[in-house]
Amino acid sequence: MNEREVRARALELIERTPIVMVGTLGEAGDPQVKAMIKAEHEGFAAIWFSTNTSSEHVGQLEKDPRACVYFAQWAADPWCGLTLGGRMEILRDRASRERLWDDGSEKFYPKGVEDPDYTVLRFVPEWGKYWQFGTKMRFDIAGDE
Amino acid sequence: MNEREVRARALELIERTPIVMVGTLGEAGDPQVKAMIKAEHEGFAAIWFSTNTSSEHVGQLEKDPRACVYFAQWAADPWCGLTLGGRMEILRDRASRERLWDDGSEKFYPKGVEDPDYTVLRFVPEWGKYWQFGTKMRFDIAGDE
Repeated sequence: MNEREVRARALELIERTPIVMVGTLGEAGDPQVKAMIKAEHEGFAAIWFSTNTSSEHVGQLEKDPRACVYFAQWAADPWCGLTLGGRMEILRDRASRERLWDDGSEKFYPKGVEDPDYTVLRFVPEWGKYWQFGTKMRFDIAGDE
Repeated sequence: MNEREVRARALELIERTPIVMVGTLGEAGDPQVKAMIKAEHEGFAAIWFSTNTSSEHVGQLEKDPRACVYFAQWAADPWCGLTLGGRMEILRDRASRERLWDDGSEKFYPKGVEDPDYTVLRFVPEWGKYWQFGTKMRFDIAGDE
């Protein structure tokens, strides 16, 4: 596969994966992993999440915003995986809160869209690494594509 | 749930999860995540994996052995997750190689049990963090349990 094909496969994998693994750094710079629901994505430019402000990883991301988001397909052939590496932005402005708000959100943020325990995370990738049996490729991501 | 119940749930989750997410640190101390097949486990005492010596994460683990292993159930109720944090040992001795070798291994390590591209990883947890809706608990792991 050439880079164009790899990018196309990677983008398809982003599109069809509802739950992703988010890697962050703990207090001592140790690796942490957590499953999160992908709320929204803008091609390779950004992946959006909502989370509880009180979650441990929010405090960790305030200290060090480096993160990765991992997409994998292991229940069907071919096994493939994609890591995006970059930085996580922590957003609490009204527009970002409304952007991700939906009917189910009150289960997690009972005080509504302005609930102080509601935080929006916007992940901005800088590079991607795609893998499937026989293919392994790293590519740069710069701005919107 | 008290700690005894949480530990019991956590152990069940380890037992029934064949594919786990392994978090490691990249060259610059940035978070990395990768899906791996759990080859074997010894309660909370150790989780075993096999991998290609040439894989990026082996070099990363030689530099910094801190790792975490994340188990999650998201396809069935209740959603639950377990992170084990600890250190990854890199083993290349004959006994460890034979311990994990099986009929399918030659697909990945064509030169057999002594293939230099065959590496055994033994993860030794130091703590666990179990989560399900309404419950969140951290517990220590020390030696065999």
